[in-house]
Amino acid sequence: MIKAKKKGPASKKKRPVILVTNDDGITAPGLRALVDAMQEIGEVVVVAPDSPQSGMGHAITIGKPLRLEKVAFHGEFLGYQCSGTPVDCVKLAVNKVLHRKPDLCVSGINHGSNSSINVIYSGTMSAAMEGAIEGIPSVGFSLNNYSMEADFTACQHYAKIVAKNILSSGLPVNTLLNVNFPDLSLKKIKGLKLCRQALAKWEEEFDERKDPRGRPYFWLTGKFRNYDKGEDTDEWAMKNGYVSVVPVSFDFTAHHAFQFLNKMKWDV
Amino acid sequence: MIKAKKKGPASKKKRPVILVTNDDGITAPGLRALVDAMQEIGEVVVVAPDSPQSGMGHAITIGKPLRLEKVAFHGEFLGYQCSGTPVDCVKLAVNKVLHRKPDLCVSGINHGSNSSINVIYSGTMSAAMEGAIEGIPSVGFSLNNYSMEADFTACQHYAKIVAKNILSSGLPVNTLLNVNFPDLSLKKIKGLKLCRQALAKWEEEFDERKDPRGRPYFWLTGKFRNYDKGEDTDEWAMKNGYVSVVPVSFDFTAHHAFQFLNKMKWDV
Repeated sequence: MIKAKKKGPASKKKRPVILVTNDDGITAPGLRALVDAMQEIGEVVVVAPDSPQSGMGHAITIGKPLRLEKVAFHGEFLGYQCSGTPVDCVKLAVNKVLHRKPDLCVSGINHGSNSSINVIYSGTMSAAMEGAIEGIPSVGFSLNNYSMEADFTACQHYAKIVAKNILSSGLPVNTLLNVNFPDLSLKKIKGLKLCRQALAKWEEEFDERKDPRGRPYFWLTGKFRNYDKGEDTDEWAMKNGYVSVVPVSFDFTAHHAFQFLNKMKWDV
Repeated sequence: MIKAKKKGPASKKKRPVILVTNDDGITAPGLRALVDAMQEIGEVVVVAPDSPQSGMGHAITIGKPLRLEKVAFHGEFLGYQCSGTPVDCVKLAVNKVLHRKPDLCVSGINHGSNSSINVIYSGTMSAAMEGAIEGIPSVGFSLNNYSMEADFTACQHYAKIVAKNILSSGLPVNTLLNVNFPDLSLKKIKGLKLCRQALAKWEEEFDERKDPRGRPYFWLTGKFRNYDKGEDTDEWAMKNGYVSVVPVSFDFTAHHAFQFLNKMKWDV
């Protein structure tokens, strides 16, 4: 899949190198959909986790070593699978596969939305954030549908627009993009919309059960609650038929908080 | 350790409930140091991982169930250990141990600094961030010393000041604190300093080895590089003998990026 295209008149201009990763693992249909879309734009290199890594956030693997192995399907070289987290994949891709920074790092297409507060828990978005920290223009893509049979046609259309846009214009310093697709057909999607992260949250409930020895264990469940009524948020955009595009920063400093905090007595 | 104090004249005023967690695990000396300090201020409840979880970032456990068990040392009840990540600990503490929000959530004291970009990878800081998402005033504490024999005396002094400050003044909305201690004696520390996150990064190197079957594996290593020369950063403060206090937001929106992005053609 990352074989060089035959050189022809159209390929005289050097094609960009695009790193594709995800958190659902190398066999996920969403990864395949993103690879197929990106191959129309550039030379694709895949480095993805060898197993699902949803909810891994910005985890890195420091207590054990990592494996990196070539993967082929039906004799066709697909890419590399890594035993670590999505963030590990990006680090290994840059250092041990490409030996250079790619021109673009795309992560996804995630099976499930990463809008709003989900950006914090998402391995998909953490992979893109790691790309941005490394200085690579990076974007995470997610579809608001958890099914393995989801239709990624509309996502592919808009992912190509976003990728081309980034490759031609670049991104502001220290910024990546969080792109979320509503689960709609291409015809029904109204377009792309720049948004801010909705200040929504998960309200947890733990499903408490007993094991055969009578000892308790807990399954994490929860309900997503959006108390943010703004019409400039990613949640609003998705609900209203738009593809949401949120610029994301890895400077977590709460600059708005200094005025309040400066009034507190710190020099005790 | 969380036994109710005997009621006396001094305890008529209700003592605050303080949740203590970390990412180094329930047996870490840094946790014990933080518990000892917080017990001077309030009623302490400990819910911490049953094993070290450094570098876990904002990972949550969704693919397997969680265990939560009481832990005692030498007959003294210490708290609860959880089989999950630091973020899982906070969720379980609120939902299944306290059945209410604590008045304060403190995480640490981490064995190793979580200043600058480390805030992103840190389980310590993710636990505090989860507390803040739940609406609890939250703070992460870290000492710039990885040793299990580190001296936490100065940290305890300043952790109490920060905790009291938060309990009396509160924190700005959607904001937690990232507090990092230089590895200095109480006498040598110049005080607390409000800072922004230094825009530094890790430059990875992978240590490639062969297993006994000749197959490669990789250890993640790297060097911390600070290219941010600002004197208002946490890195500067730590290097100059201050305890750094960075307000941290879980709204990751890169608000500074909209001007640039609005000029790009999104309506294709």
